[in-house]
Amino acid sequence: MPQYNSLIAGRWSSKADSQEFIHSYAPSTGEALPDSYPLSDYGELSAAVAAGLSAAVELVRIAPSTIADFLETYAANIEAGAEEICAMAALETALPYEPRLRSVELPRTTNQLRQAAAAARDRSWTTATIDTKLNIHSMLRPMAGPIVVFGPNNFPLAFNSVSGGDFAAAIAAGNPVIAKANPGHLSTTRLLAEAACKALQTTGMPPSTLQLFYHCLPGDGLKLVAHQSVAAAAFTGSREAGLALKAAADAAGKPIYLEMSSVNPIFVLPGALSERGAEIAAEYSDACLLGAGQFCTNPGLVVVPAGSSGEAFLEAVVARFRQRPAGTLLSQSGAARIDEAIRALQQAGAEIVTGGGGAGFQFSNTLLRVSAKSFLKHADLLQTEAFGPVSLIVIAADLADMVAIAAKLHGNLTGGIYTHSQSHDDGAYDKLEPVLRVKVGRLLNNKMPTGVAVSPAMVHGGPYPATGHPGFTAVGIPAALHRFAVLQGYDTVAQHRLPAELRDKNPTGEMWRLVDGRWTQADLPRQ
Amino acid sequence: MPQYNSLIAGRWSSKADSQEFIHSYAPSTGEALPDSYPLSDYGELSAAVAAGLSAAVELVRIAPSTIADFLETYAANIEAGAEEICAMAALETALPYEPRLRSVELPRTTNQLRQAAAAARDRSWTTATIDTKLNIHSMLRPMAGPIVVFGPNNFPLAFNSVSGGDFAAAIAAGNPVIAKANPGHLSTTRLLAEAACKALQTTGMPPSTLQLFYHCLPGDGLKLVAHQSVAAAAFTGSREAGLALKAAADAAGKPIYLEMSSVNPIFVLPGALSERGAEIAAEYSDACLLGAGQFCTNPGLVVVPAGSSGEAFLEAVVARFRQRPAGTLLSQSGAARIDEAIRALQQAGAEIVTGGGGAGFQFSNTLLRVSAKSFLKHADLLQTEAFGPVSLIVIAADLADMVAIAAKLHGNLTGGIYTHSQSHDDGAYDKLEPVLRVKVGRLLNNKMPTGVAVSPAMVHGGPYPATGHPGFTAVGIPAALHRFAVLQGYDTVAQHRLPAELRDKNPTGEMWRLVDGRWTQADLPRQ
Repeated sequence: MPQYNSLIAGRWSSKADSQEFIHSYAPSTGEALPDSYPLSDYGELSAAVAAGLSAAVELVRIAPSTIADFLETYAANIEAGAEEICAMAALETALPYEPRLRSVELPRTTNQLRQAAAAARDRSWTTATIDTKLNIHSMLRPMAGPIVVFGPNNFPLAFNSVSGGDFAAAIAAGNPVIAKANPGHLSTTRLLAEAACKALQTTGMPPSTLQLFYHCLPGDGLKLVAHQSVAAAAFTGSREAGLALKAAADAAGKPIYLEMSSVNPIFVLPGALSERGAEIAAEYSDACLLGAGQFCTNPGLVVVPAGSSGEAFLEAVVARFRQRPAGTLLSQSGAARIDEAIRALQQAGAEIVTGGGGAGFQFSNTLLRVSAKSFLKHADLLQTEAFGPVSLIVIAADLADMVAIAAKLHGNLTGGIYTHSQSHDDGAYDKLEPVLRVKVGRLLNNKMPTGVAVSPAMVHGGPYPATGHPGFTAVGIPAALHRFAVLQGYDTVAQHRLPAELRDKNPTGEMWRLVDGRWTQADLPRQ
Repeated sequence: MPQYNSLIAGRWSSKADSQEFIHSYAPSTGEALPDSYPLSDYGELSAAVAAGLSAAVELVRIAPSTIADFLETYAANIEAGAEEICAMAALETALPYEPRLRSVELPRTTNQLRQAAAAARDRSWTTATIDTKLNIHSMLRPMAGPIVVFGPNNFPLAFNSVSGGDFAAAIAAGNPVIAKANPGHLSTTRLLAEAACKALQTTGMPPSTLQLFYHCLPGDGLKLVAHQSVAAAAFTGSREAGLALKAAADAAGKPIYLEMSSVNPIFVLPGALSERGAEIAAEYSDACLLGAGQFCTNPGLVVVPAGSSGEAFLEAVVARFRQRPAGTLLSQSGAARIDEAIRALQQAGAEIVTGGGGAGFQFSNTLLRVSAKSFLKHADLLQTEAFGPVSLIVIAADLADMVAIAAKLHGNLTGGIYTHSQSHDDGAYDKLEPVLRVKVGRLLNNKMPTGVAVSPAMVHGGPYPATGHPGFTAVGIPAALHRFAVLQGYDTVAQHRLPAELRDKNPTGEMWRLVDGRWTQADLPRQ
């Protein structure tokens, strides 16, 4: 049983006194994997913070191009080790090596790192703002401390705490990262961190730019995000864990960015249903079952009109759910958690139409249904997220039902409306959209929410409790960098004492700056 | 004794059953003023929230130009009533009618409202972002609920909850406001709200766009910021009250923007001291005593080098503090609070050099001194804010002392460094600046912090506990609007269903949008 160590202060430190170790499991067999990883005590976490703080001080002085070099070198290292990394990820998560891991998620991960590198190099993300008359300047700058990143179990590469979106954004904004590995893919995380370490060395970055631990007592995790030298934290995972971390960070005045839970409501309007109900049913079923439904943007709640078209839609979904093999879950507790969620839904009046059973890493494709009347009565409980191949169809008697349902929704990452290809649903859309709009971060029209493109215009955020703050996005560069920055002003500070981004001469010749109210790439007029 | 009412749902509602009333005081005489204002119970606050929520829904559909019209009409109304408003503010605060209120603060207030109007009209504040290839759009939009604003006592016009910076930013971003009057200037607030109401009527805005209450039980204030239909809150005031509101808002997942406390440290480097110590001493004394020291940017902590120049500096400040008449405080409890703060400073080793006494609305101009050694030993206590004409000078043996002091600072709104006019202090600046920089929102060089210009580049924010989040500013348009907005994405939504700001055609012809990574005012290329 190989024992591995945490990465603290640039060293894979030997913690010979650790008595407790954890393992990843192979979901396809249910068996523990041989690699073992230590429990970090609070002393080790504190050492990581101290090292991260010194790296933060160094990073402020390092050229953005060096940070970009690191991110690009790291991306290349991941590509060089792609086979090993993806094989390990497939073993630890049971996600398919092809196409999911090797041809989709790994390229997405390296693409994110390269986009983050480009943003660091470009510097426009800093929103440098200059008032030439008053000689006042401002810009977003690094946070002067390490960012603690907790990654989820469902994207072992693209949202991994050592290689994913939060990592890329935090580093590109000039901050060191203290990563906690998700217990579902410990060895994948280690392999990625090794590739990152090599890239740090190659590019002359501070070794403590990335630190990694695998496991800690829950109370120590709460202390960590509240540590006085930690700048901020980012978390993707369950609402329960997210809210506990939020309370700890809030009490210490530390920003924390959370992506917690979402049922991603979809409304199928009557015109769309009669025009292409079967097509939408197929699209919806595929989105539901993709990755065994373990996406934060999984469509878990679909509202369809009552009547024969609605029943036909439901039957088409049921057929597809039965036809498809059940996927393998990411976590040993997956089935138990889904089971618990389904019981909550049933308690509130939902009925199982197909599926409903499972254990360990397996759960059958499950569809539930409930009337709008029941939903409106037990709206809170009927928004319980079942993280897996599970979805709830709500049968709405009319548009008024749909609008009422939308009004009862909690904050979600996404929401969608399916409409007729011509204008048949326009009136209904206009009534429903304003109510749904304010409940979701990303609104889709005739599209399933599961794909989250890495675009500057992407919003992967939304109202509480989908996230902790509705003004930010976790995906999309450069906006995602804004979470890990502080706004700093310079009032009547001499030119040579300003950061390069704020001096009269544009530091790259291409950086966008807001000068006297106009966005420009030019040097300042007085130059 | 005229009794006035709260402004709820567009009516100055009669609360005949209120048994408890409050009054403002005239600080110049210490006597209660005749106008009386009711305690709002939680039922009344809930009614305000319900009305604010319906106004929020209406505001989303209203043209930004109408919101701008309102802000401009309101500014004109304030100017038309300037004599009455400023006379009342002078009575309630003892701030001078001229020049402070009539010629400085009132024009600043109307200027802020007009800048906010221009931002609403221009729409560039929304940072509309368009990915033409993927057909994904995002922008900042109104929060879909009322914003609760708590104003401070020290700016009866420019930071008033019904006319100040937070009000202007929240409205310009398309949100209704529920304002709590500061007890120090109840009638000034009522006069302003009357002018706002007229402007709402004139411009056809929803009557519930502004609601005003004067007083509530502390527990009801906490419930208000956590109310499920409140979108966010903004608070300017004491750290104690701010942290209580923050805890309540945080627990409910509601954004809250706080401006709490700050001692605004200033470091005088040896070259500057020897070059123009007397000049800096005069500048510092004037900044300290302005408005009886009751500014959030008051320089409350100044670090000077030990030795004869430092002692001469201190003596010059003492002379000026003694020469100047003591100002009148804003609040009846002002002297008691200052006294308490001074006792904390003394307990930690600071010695009173001049002043130190007062009662009620009066407190003598007070200077304290302490050694760097003591400061480093009791750094937390020696950063106690005394909100009044009080400042603490720290005598530093050398640059190492200064850097160590900077490292011990809490988060502050501002920090300053005075340097020699030539390069004499450059080495010291380079050592001190990185340490100070990360402790403050706005860094000044050879300038006192008390003036806060309303510039797009202004940062009136900073690290906790100066504020609750280091990424925002309370002053400066358009950045201040970003606090009261949510990021909303549109994924593959049909053109005619997008907000005007995201459609191919630029809605104003001048709005700045980030299109495929470039800021532009143009229509979209595919048009």
